[in-house]
Amino acid sequence: MTLPTFNQDPDFAITRAGHVRLQCTDLEKSRDFYRDVIGLVVTEETDHAIYLRGLEEDCHHSMVLEHGTEAKALQVGLRVRSEEDILDAEKFFKKVGVEHERVEADHQGATLRFRDPVGTHMELTSSMETVPRKMADFHDFRAGAPQRLDHYQVVTYDVQEATDFWTGLGMRMSEYTAKDGTDELWGTWLEVKGNTHDLVFTNGRGPRLHHFAYTVPDATALIHAADVTGSMGFGHEIDRGPGRHGLSNALFLYIRDPDQHRIELFTTHYQFIDMESEPIRWDVSDPRRAQQWGMPASRRWFFEASEFPGEDVLEPLLKATPATLEDYLSIH
Amino acid sequence: MTLPTFNQDPDFAITRAGHVRLQCTDLEKSRDFYRDVIGLVVTEETDHAIYLRGLEEDCHHSMVLEHGTEAKALQVGLRVRSEEDILDAEKFFKKVGVEHERVEADHQGATLRFRDPVGTHMELTSSMETVPRKMADFHDFRAGAPQRLDHYQVVTYDVQEATDFWTGLGMRMSEYTAKDGTDELWGTWLEVKGNTHDLVFTNGRGPRLHHFAYTVPDATALIHAADVTGSMGFGHEIDRGPGRHGLSNALFLYIRDPDQHRIELFTTHYQFIDMESEPIRWDVSDPRRAQQWGMPASRRWFFEASEFPGEDVLEPLLKATPATLEDYLSIH
Amino acid sequence: MTLPTFNQDPDFAITRAGHVRLQCTDLEKSRDFYRDVIGLVVTEETDHAIYLRGLEEDCHHSMVLEHGTEAKALQVGLRVRSEEDILDAEKFFKKVGVEHERVEADHQGATLRFRDPVGTHMELTSSMETVPRKMADFHDFRAGAPQRLDHYQVVTYDVQEATDFWTGLGMRMSEYTAKDGTDELWGTWLEVKGNTHDLVFTNGRGPRLHHFAYTVPDATALIHAADVTGSMGFGHEIDRGPGRHGLSNALFLYIRDPDQHRIELFTTHYQFIDMESEPIRWDVSDPRRAQQWGMPASRRWFFEASEFPGEDVLEPLLKATPATLEDYLSIH
Amino acid sequence: MTLPTFNQDPDFAITRAGHVRLQCTDLEKSRDFYRDVIGLVVTEETDHAIYLRGLEEDCHHSMVLEHGTEAKALQVGLRVRSEEDILDAEKFFKKVGVEHERVEADHQGATLRFRDPVGTHMELTSSMETVPRKMADFHDFRAGAPQRLDHYQVVTYDVQEATDFWTGLGMRMSEYTAKDGTDELWGTWLEVKGNTHDLVFTNGRGPRLHHFAYTVPDATALIHAADVTGSMGFGHEIDRGPGRHGLSNALFLYIRDPDQHRIELFTTHYQFIDMESEPIRWDVSDPRRAQQWGMPASRRWFFEASEFPGEDVLEPLLKATPATLEDYLSIH
Repeated sequence: MTLPTFNQDPDFAITRAGHVRLQCTDLEKSRDFYRDVIGLVVTEETDHAIYLRGLEEDCHHSMVLEHGTEAKALQVGLRVRSEEDILDAEKFFKKVGVEHERVEADHQGATLRFRDPVGTHMELTSSMETVPRKMADFHDFRAGAPQRLDHYQVVTYDVQEATDFWTGLGMRMSEYTAKDGTDELWGTWLEVKGNTHDLVFTNGRGPRLHHFAYTVPDATALIHAADVTGSMGFGHEIDRGPGRHGLSNALFLYIRDPDQHRIELFTTHYQFIDMESEPIRWDVSDPRRAQQWGMPASRRWFFEASEFPGEDVLEPLLKATPATLEDYLSIH
Repeated sequence: MTLPTFNQDPDFAITRAGHVRLQCTDLEKSRDFYRDVIGLVVTEETDHAIYLRGLEEDCHHSMVLEHGTEAKALQVGLRVRSEEDILDAEKFFKKVGVEHERVEADHQGATLRFRDPVGTHMELTSSMETVPRKMADFHDFRAGAPQRLDHYQVVTYDVQEATDFWTGLGMRMSEYTAKDGTDELWGTWLEVKGNTHDLVFTNGRGPRLHHFAYTVPDATALIHAADVTGSMGFGHEIDRGPGRHGLSNALFLYIRDPDQHRIELFTTHYQFIDMESEPIRWDVSDPRRAQQWGMPASRRWFFEASEFPGEDVLEPLLKATPATLEDYLSIH
Repeated sequence: MTLPTFNQDPDFAITRAGHVRLQCTDLEKSRDFYRDVIGLVVTEETDHAIYLRGLEEDCHHSMVLEHGTEAKALQVGLRVRSEEDILDAEKFFKKVGVEHERVEADHQGATLRFRDPVGTHMELTSSMETVPRKMADFHDFRAGAPQRLDHYQVVTYDVQEATDFWTGLGMRMSEYTAKDGTDELWGTWLEVKGNTHDLVFTNGRGPRLHHFAYTVPDATALIHAADVTGSMGFGHEIDRGPGRHGLSNALFLYIRDPDQHRIELFTTHYQFIDMESEPIRWDVSDPRRAQQWGMPASRRWFFEASEFPGEDVLEPLLKATPATLEDYLSIH
Repeated sequence: MTLPTFNQDPDFAITRAGHVRLQCTDLEKSRDFYRDVIGLVVTEETDHAIYLRGLEEDCHHSMVLEHGTEAKALQVGLRVRSEEDILDAEKFFKKVGVEHERVEADHQGATLRFRDPVGTHMELTSSMETVPRKMADFHDFRAGAPQRLDHYQVVTYDVQEATDFWTGLGMRMSEYTAKDGTDELWGTWLEVKGNTHDLVFTNGRGPRLHHFAYTVPDATALIHAADVTGSMGFGHEIDRGPGRHGLSNALFLYIRDPDQHRIELFTTHYQFIDMESEPIRWDVSDPRRAQQWGMPASRRWFFEASEFPGEDVLEPLLKATPATLEDYLSIH
């Protein structure tokens, strides 16, 4: 499948995953979770929003919690380098027929919201207020000591279409899963910042935000994150890991917040910069793509994710066989 | 329940878990596993036995692999301080009616085999040939870099009787599980060396050796052990972990060898020396006793263990309810 | 040299290093240091004393800070198992002519103070009030997350005499330094709890307390301890490490408190239980005994230590050559 | 100072540090060092060159060892994205008067050597043969498990001129040292790949290559690297660290190879992508810029570095005061 109307290079450049905007039903509870269980830094609190960031980030926020009556993923934010990029993005989206609107977002420069062709709610931002990096305030490190927002994973009903759109915007595929013996894409790992992924699409009922990920310094931090999750009474909210993905070689831990939004903590990627590096293919039937060792994911890791407000969730174009699902979930 | 004939203090002192003797169906395959996947040091190989030790041990062996047609746990070895202790043990076992025999064991001093009242096959040893400690040969560290044999866990049909016998031999209970609201013992953690356990008994079909445990230096080593297990093709043989037990606060990983004997790697205990320290009680219904966070154990971790040759496996005196079992195994 | 009057086995058994008692010139400043920079838990504060412990300890205190006009080491505390041991110790000290006195010490059982033959101020305690272990309160871990008091190092003018006395009390030598080609003892590592040392004596102007040591979980914790020491403004108070001793294979970090008392953080020992294990000898000229790699100790690590009140500091019987000292301190 | 002829944007884009080319006096000895003490992977050996790479790299080499009678730094290699970039670089260097030449380099695409205005010998490469990444072969990890080449530090007699040239080529300053109260540059940390540095210039006798750096996974790997360096007999070749720089917040270890070329192992950077992030300034008199805690660098770390063949070493334009130097080296 191709998306010819999208494959002209736009004039703007996405640089990284910037910030995630979540709707939460109890702001205090969510703030406490992200500050005390996860270890993020609270930059600012207002009546209707809480702004957080990782320990090394000098941007005002990489996470915004907004109050609402339902738990929702609001926007998946990406960064561009300048306001000119935003203007170019507007021209491009107009040309290719992508819904978009300029918004005023506190503490952010020029900000553009849009809906990608598979219904993901996105936000492009040109700049942000800066604040001091806390990376050398070691005495303030808590839990897993998350350093920075790194990437998103979105469940989509059409991985091919999502991939075509985003590679058309300059993202590059580093790894992918495909049905055995075919080129039928089941998952694509797309990057702009020079390591394996900033945005991932996997096959399933979508659009839904499966998780957003923060890096932690190392395996010890990941285990300490799990230990603190347990000692703070959230041990049952770990729905996968610790484990090692074959895909991107990541050491991971997934935790659900009080609204069941899912955060991944992981120990960063390998570098992916050179143009001659080929993307790595994994057959969807290969269990090592998902985990190199240890216990399988829980059922809820596979089937639960955060919906976007007002966005219908569609059945995936590709269907998993019952056998595949059992294999996902089997305990040896 | 009491065992009055056993509760007179013997004159010999057990000092630590010493060595485990396993019967394996393919010696080379088992040696390769313990050397390359687990990281133990091979001290010596003969036609019918392979001797291994941890990196910091100066004893000739803490593991003996012997060839046989069936996979069996042969002996669970404990150390005493001198030959005089062995003589005193013989007198004591004669007095209380425990089957025992002196044996010649290569590289070991005076060695006494006996069968405890619940059928566990044991071996007491007074001394062993010494070899250089490898703890400072950092360039030779492999996989989880296991340091030393630490403890055993035995499944027994009668936890109370096992506990009475071993506390009668000077072991001290550091933690235990009991049926909620009762003193009905489901598991006992017994120690002699000044930290939480050298010998553990848990309720189930027994006697069977559930696992033996080696210490690893830290959480990073534990994760590296899992990674090497995966990269060497044994990822599916991890049947529990990494995770954190409530009991003894251990960070654990369990791996099955080619004969399905189970080794635990863990990051050591807390100190337990002072007489005023009380044992910690856990209700058997409290899931946090088994894991503070993360995925439950696999079914095979609960139900599979190594039998002793010629020893009948008996149904446990205490019965788990189906609800309890489902709870053990449920994935949230 | 021998000390024949001391080599009769006493009837009491020392079990471990128990608590250190320090005189500090500013209690609040010292408390803040040990709580916030080191990560100890404050059990209790009174007008004239502050009681602290490690995260896994269930004893009321392993450190007592007492206010005074001068910085002094007050007592080096060891544990015995029962009040009967204290009575036996009194008899023994009376017999061999060691000054001693029974004291009332808050939160402690029967307590006996004495002065060993080289002037070290000691305290034996039979029991202590217990408090909850904090080892599973991972969200409260700070800095290096020190787990427990482990051992002491005392500078003495007569290593031989100190060693004779303490081995006479049941301590066992695990490692030692000696002048090349001789048996002239320069340092002795003595243990009772089954790993390499509870009490160390090294040659120099003494008696002085060189340091007391707490264990930390792993290398990552040690580096985090250094990082927090730096970020809290005490980076210049690290006077040695991180580094690896040859002696006992310890990974170490030494930090001076506001009164210049010295604490060591280290990642625990190897096990030393079996009677056939020989002590390891290091020639005093071998630089690898002190560090396997990296930068040498600072001058103040070598020459500064805490004096005991009213106790004369004597010149060592063995003299270091200037060449040796330069070698200690040289930067390659 | 400005370099007006250089400040026109070139049409080519440097993407990262690519490979370092070292002249060694004993190829086998150097290979053994980098493979066994450092843990690099040997991709290929020929009679006159040895090619190595980090565990996650899919490029044929990030280090080339070439035999010669003297130890020299040959080339500091950078990557561009395509052959077209090489053509554009040639045009640009011709225009601005930088000596350059196209060379045939085995296993590399189009390769251009040039000499920057302060005499650094550089090599631009458009592509390289790819080989499998070893990042998931955990059983083959050795020593510090170095993952990838990351950056270079060059000592130069004119930091300002070097900085003007390289920022003219698209590099961006993330941090810098300057004489207190002035804008006199003493060191500049320049980046292209989105974290703090790919190329660093510091004031001193130059041009000389001070070190090249590989990332290691974490603090534990860094300590293990030091331990293996010690156990392999190279402990005295650590000339700085482990320690924490203020500059870039790096946890570092510096080791000299058999020819005294210096490799840094470090635990990677913080991300530096957003245009609004300001470079961090450090006064050259602030000791925390160099180390947040612990022992100072050795004298040889400050004064020794690898020369480029045929290139005169010039005295720095800025002079350090003796007081500053003593401060650098003082042991508290």
